[in-house]
Amino acid sequence: MQQCYGSIIRRQRHFIRCLGGDRCNNSSSDTLLLLNDNTRMQSVMSRSNPAIEADALSILRSISPTLDSTKHKGQAGKIAVVGGCREYTGAPYFSAISALKIGADLSHVICTKDAAPVIKSYSPELIVHPLLEESYSVRDEDRQSVATVVLAEVDKWMERFDCLVIGPGLGRDPFLLDCVSDIMKHARRSNVPMVIDGDGLFLVTNRLDLVSGYPLAVLTPNVNEYKRLVQKVLNCEVNDQDGPEQLLSLASSIGGVTILRKGQSDNISDGKEVRSVSIFGSPRRCGGQGDILSGSVAVFLAWARKLVDKEGHTLNPTMLGCIAGSALMRKAASLAFEDKKRSTLTTDIIECLGRSLEDICPVG
Amino acid sequence: MQQCYGSIIRRQRHFIRCLGGDRCNNSSSDTLLLLNDNTRMQSVMSRSNPAIEADALSILRSISPTLDSTKHKGQAGKIAVVGGCREYTGAPYFSAISALKIGADLSHVICTKDAAPVIKSYSPELIVHPLLEESYSVRDEDRQSVATVVLAEVDKWMERFDCLVIGPGLGRDPFLLDCVSDIMKHARRSNVPMVIDGDGLFLVTNRLDLVSGYPLAVLTPNVNEYKRLVQKVLNCEVNDQDGPEQLLSLASSIGGVTILRKGQSDNISDGKEVRSVSIFGSPRRCGGQGDILSGSVAVFLAWARKLVDKEGHTLNPTMLGCIAGSALMRKAASLAFEDKKRSTLTTDIIECLGRSLEDICPVG
Repeated sequence: MQQCYGSIIRRQRHFIRCLGGDRCNNSSSDTLLLLNDNTRMQSVMSRSNPAIEADALSILRSISPTLDSTKHKGQAGKIAVVGGCREYTGAPYFSAISALKIGADLSHVICTKDAAPVIKSYSPELIVHPLLEESYSVRDEDRQSVATVVLAEVDKWMERFDCLVIGPGLGRDPFLLDCVSDIMKHARRSNVPMVIDGDGLFLVTNRLDLVSGYPLAVLTPNVNEYKRLVQKVLNCEVNDQDGPEQLLSLASSIGGVTILRKGQSDNISDGKEVRSVSIFGSPRRCGGQGDILSGSVAVFLAWARKLVDKEGHTLNPTMLGCIAGSALMRKAASLAFEDKKRSTLTTDIIECLGRSLEDICPVG
Repeated sequence: MQQCYGSIIRRQRHFIRCLGGDRCNNSSSDTLLLLNDNTRMQSVMSRSNPAIEADALSILRSISPTLDSTKHKGQAGKIAVVGGCREYTGAPYFSAISALKIGADLSHVICTKDAAPVIKSYSPELIVHPLLEESYSVRDEDRQSVATVVLAEVDKWMERFDCLVIGPGLGRDPFLLDCVSDIMKHARRSNVPMVIDGDGLFLVTNRLDLVSGYPLAVLTPNVNEYKRLVQKVLNCEVNDQDGPEQLLSLASSIGGVTILRKGQSDNISDGKEVRSVSIFGSPRRCGGQGDILSGSVAVFLAWARKLVDKEGHTLNPTMLGCIAGSALMRKAASLAFEDKKRSTLTTDIIECLGRSLEDICPVG
């Protein structure tokens, strides 16, 4: 067993050296990391490509704001999801309602005119803006003027948002994606963080300039989306043997955006550090779980940015937001699965967000 | 009593000889079949037309995939229901949501533009495509071009689907049925299995060429739909005295499609074998239960096709899917009825799908 630990320690040391990390670059702290926490140890041992396991629950606790009666509406976060078209309406709802259930004060959805009544019907809690248009509803000669109006309308709200989620149920209509590209440029100019998922990743993979060099951008790719990103940016195939190194390299190559690579463990890198979240989730893979995650990361990222006392965090707010979002999503999925088993759906997981938060980070 | 057993055994032997079945074609195994399992015995004795009772619960267990954290979204099945028009919206929802609750990862509905917002509003879990058109919304001169667009749009998705359900709430508009006929031809060319129910059976009864000779087609007729099929294909009336033989002959005459004849017991044949599922269900006959069954069969059929190790199954995947789907539906109906009695509705049965699955096939 000691021999096995030894080999893991050697591999971790090598990996940490590759990262140029300064936190654990001596043998005594490595050993501490590996031997002091059994859970972490098991998780490191179970995988062929160890990344440092984040202390996700502590991070979640440390960035969640205290609740007290002096605060007023909006201080706990205002999130907007840009997504929802004629074809997809569930995804933006999942993302936006998750943000609210985690503790944001206001959750907006910016979607197409067709999608708005349906998304509104899912819940009266959301503020749904029917602003976007798809090609089929705009004449060619009107495109420029419509795009200008869309951008002006979204801009009215931009400064109020603490984070945007770009992509859930966005679809791939070229005109709509052009408008969303403009929205992203404005968000960037206003220093509004963006979590990019789903069709937003399709857009960004083809338009890397939209996020490249923007440290407040988070990409949350699944298996296939990650594969396309690696091919496009690193011009090679995914290499799971050197998973964390490749992730680091990918994030660094896109100018220090943060990437949350979803998988059996979630691996997160901002191009400088790599952390892993391996808390047990659920083996069900029903569609929509990624939308909960994007809404969740958006809220935690907004909270992490607002921390006055960074409480010794060496990681940047986007990393902290990803780690907390991933941990909460996994915890909620595991509670839902415990109850619903094979029948677990995304709405069941959303219903468990509150209990998960209270388990991890009790009020008061 | 012994005399009664003897007469049943003789009739079963005769029947098995008619089938040319090799599984139970000697007297000792017949006796074993009849005497070793009281439940099965009672079910055989209670009916005038015994078919071999399937070991439905074992089959369900053996084809349900294990759940583990290495899998990713889509691997547990992607189902699409083709149905839903201005008049009917509940049926496709029941079918599609049942597929999800049983364990499919993604469930799509392909319906008319009018039906889509309503079906979407029932649940954000479904992906609803407003693609189909009815005659009233298409000018005569535009029919050809509209049909081409519909088919092209559905084709974009076709290869991703593990099974289609054709018919729940489809309606009988001639133009719409022409488009669905084209979709079925394309599905067949892509080897996508199809479960055909409701208005899909109306279509198929008049257009047998759409399924004839396609071993991945399943028809799920109720009393009246079965009657019309028998009249059309066998040119005679339903004969309940020789029910299993007639069912076998019907499936064989349509070139080896699988037929699940719904009734007091569900009888299932692919033209080579006949099996019965007699698990106690519910005496309530509220509309919509057939839709749960079609969604259920679609998922189990998709799973059965993916089995690498057939675990000694002598039946083909469509038979296995029908048997498992029938068993689960009956179990869920019985649980719902236990709780809701005369007031039992289809949504109550859907809510019992998860608990039924867990009773039959516990996770882990």
